[in-house]
Amino acid sequence: MRLCNQYELPIVPQGGLTGLSGGAVPVSGGVALSTDRMSGIISVDPDNFCLTAWAGTPLETVQNAAREFGLEYPVDIGARGSATVGGTIATNAGGIRVIRHGMTRQHVLGLEVVLADGTVLSNLRSMIKDNAGYDLKQIFIGSEGTLGIVTRAVLKLCPAPTQRNTALLGLADYASGLACLGSARRSFEAQLTAFEGMWPYYWDLATSMKLSGRAPLKGGHGLYVLLETSGHDLAAFEEWLAECFESGLVEDGAIAQSLSDINDFWSVREAIGEVDHVIGPHLNFDIGLQPSALGEFVSVCEAALTDLATGPTLYVGHIGDGNLHVIVPVREHSNDYVWEIENRVFGILSEREGTVTAEHGVGLLKRDWLNRTRRPEEIQLMRHLKSCLDPKSLLNPGKVIPT
Amino acid sequence: MRLCNQYELPIVPQGGLTGLSGGAVPVSGGVALSTDRMSGIISVDPDNFCLTAWAGTPLETVQNAAREFGLEYPVDIGARGSATVGGTIATNAGGIRVIRHGMTRQHVLGLEVVLADGTVLSNLRSMIKDNAGYDLKQIFIGSEGTLGIVTRAVLKLCPAPTQRNTALLGLADYASGLACLGSARRSFEAQLTAFEGMWPYYWDLATSMKLSGRAPLKGGHGLYVLLETSGHDLAAFEEWLAECFESGLVEDGAIAQSLSDINDFWSVREAIGEVDHVIGPHLNFDIGLQPSALGEFVSVCEAALTDLATGPTLYVGHIGDGNLHVIVPVREHSNDYVWEIENRVFGILSEREGTVTAEHGVGLLKRDWLNRTRRPEEIQLMRHLKSCLDPKSLLNPGKVIPT
Repeated sequence: MRLCNQYELPIVPQGGLTGLSGGAVPVSGGVALSTDRMSGIISVDPDNFCLTAWAGTPLETVQNAAREFGLEYPVDIGARGSATVGGTIATNAGGIRVIRHGMTRQHVLGLEVVLADGTVLSNLRSMIKDNAGYDLKQIFIGSEGTLGIVTRAVLKLCPAPTQRNTALLGLADYASGLACLGSARRSFEAQLTAFEGMWPYYWDLATSMKLSGRAPLKGGHGLYVLLETSGHDLAAFEEWLAECFESGLVEDGAIAQSLSDINDFWSVREAIGEVDHVIGPHLNFDIGLQPSALGEFVSVCEAALTDLATGPTLYVGHIGDGNLHVIVPVREHSNDYVWEIENRVFGILSEREGTVTAEHGVGLLKRDWLNRTRRPEEIQLMRHLKSCLDPKSLLNPGKVIPT
Repeated sequence: MRLCNQYELPIVPQGGLTGLSGGAVPVSGGVALSTDRMSGIISVDPDNFCLTAWAGTPLETVQNAAREFGLEYPVDIGARGSATVGGTIATNAGGIRVIRHGMTRQHVLGLEVVLADGTVLSNLRSMIKDNAGYDLKQIFIGSEGTLGIVTRAVLKLCPAPTQRNTALLGLADYASGLACLGSARRSFEAQLTAFEGMWPYYWDLATSMKLSGRAPLKGGHGLYVLLETSGHDLAAFEEWLAECFESGLVEDGAIAQSLSDINDFWSVREAIGEVDHVIGPHLNFDIGLQPSALGEFVSVCEAALTDLATGPTLYVGHIGDGNLHVIVPVREHSNDYVWEIENRVFGILSEREGTVTAEHGVGLLKRDWLNRTRRPEEIQLMRHLKSCLDPKSLLNPGKVIPT
């Protein structure tokens, strides 16, 4: 890093290369800096519920190390086998348990980063509470390698849940989904650990791909919800579901009876990583809105794309967090055509004060749309920070901040 | 703010004036900027579990507004009646439920701040997930008014717990306390909402002040724990406590049977705000360490202060978060004498990689000790950030960063 600074060579940090926004793509020459060999758990401290790891450690390795002590690292994403500690911190990864556990930011207790000039900024303490001056790690978390390179981290762990209950629900429409979310949040409080939504076209496609045997639910619903509670009593869970049936909130539902059921249920939700091959050329969006606005967003978006998309758009995501992944089938990837689709989707979002990326990050692909979700003063301050911390613009140049 | 910038007048922001580190004390002339009249709830959005408020709104007003919708704003501190939204954000307030809910930082979804040159940086969106560029609000949270002035905020709410169980426990020593903490964390998971510790001398003093009637526990223990679970079944709570008795982990214990019991139990813990008058001149510390290190810290600290303190030191705090408040009775406030006591306490902390302030903040009082807990490169980067965001050094000058 010191040499790169001296010779003014750009540096593009690379972790597991599972990013979806082009953040790890080298675009201006220079050095691609892989954390591949900075891998491994340094220590696990079960008394203080934390773990220290190198940046290149795969997320799944961290999860497994915690599990050996009856603990859990609750950040979880489909790419857990390849995505690294450093990458998930640099992109502030979200995933399937944000509704309960928050984003990666909430799990970083200590951080070591290397600054643009080679200075090692190291604070590998593991305190939950520490208000001694500016919380510098916050600047680097989610900055996508444009302000510093993560080398080591202390991660917060929590007790592994004693019991997980998983259910698949069929509902009439998004309004029922929102009411069901409210009821689940109030009934299960901190024990609600996932509330994922799938719109009909996604459901049909994913179940046909993943559920070789009997389907846990018949189709024909307006919305499908995958719901998970942790540490919660099965009887109370069944009681809640029975009430949802009686009140008409839920049309159909199934509770996982075995580990194999749980895997089946989740496989439908996680099939998003595999639909790519089935639907042909497409564009990926990772939009964020208030949960209450998602239903209307889907209707408006669907109508706005009918003349551009080559087939029905897929909607699936973390509705408890207001985060949808939108997959639009397209006929080609020509600039004008892609721009027109993005412009419509981000225009709809912008009117509703949404975000152009809830969890995947800006990288290269969302950079020029940042002004649809951030005010000029915000982008100005980002640019100012970047020039303060990386005056020669060597760290992951061309990413995040619009030129 | 624009005029102050033009005429180079320093600005000292003031909220509820409940800070304990001198952060709101004007030290270099200029303007004291009170948020007193920027007060009130702007909106509550129960569907999306959030609330928007002006900076001058008292914390308790926010808690009450949430409660009207069956929701909770879980940041809670003894000074809730006076401390403001802006002040709690500027100091990243902690309090009694950090073990479950984290610090104030985790509850800020949107923030409006005014920068040193008068620029209004406003992002009052309420999304849980938003990775569109640098998360600028993180820079201002906990910066104690030295980088910008908070004017409005969107705060995250959670469902109000349906049931709270509160217990007071008497234990033999800190090792039992740590084992009890581990057991409680694993048994109650996300439902453990407080785990507070009181050392014997504090307990004796506080109970003599607060419990006019029968004491819930006889004295004579080595450590007292106030434990709270939320949303958890009373029978399971009693069962856990019975196991703790049987295994010898707990010597004595009482479960609150009424709201009056709950208030009684907490009044002993919150008496820390009133012991001042009883013990005479004293120094306050707000130290942070790993939970596993607190017991040994207390022994070493006690021994190190015997020849300096005028009586036994009081130890009380959030042991689940590794945060102790230490009250040292002193004979006077002369500089050399105070320096000698602080030097010993912070020396012990520094050797154990602790922090000089876990939740109260640096302000004026801890500023010159920051180097006991932060490396030179960290302080250098804080200074650099300060000069980037406040080049004329007008925002709360003299605070946080060592001169």
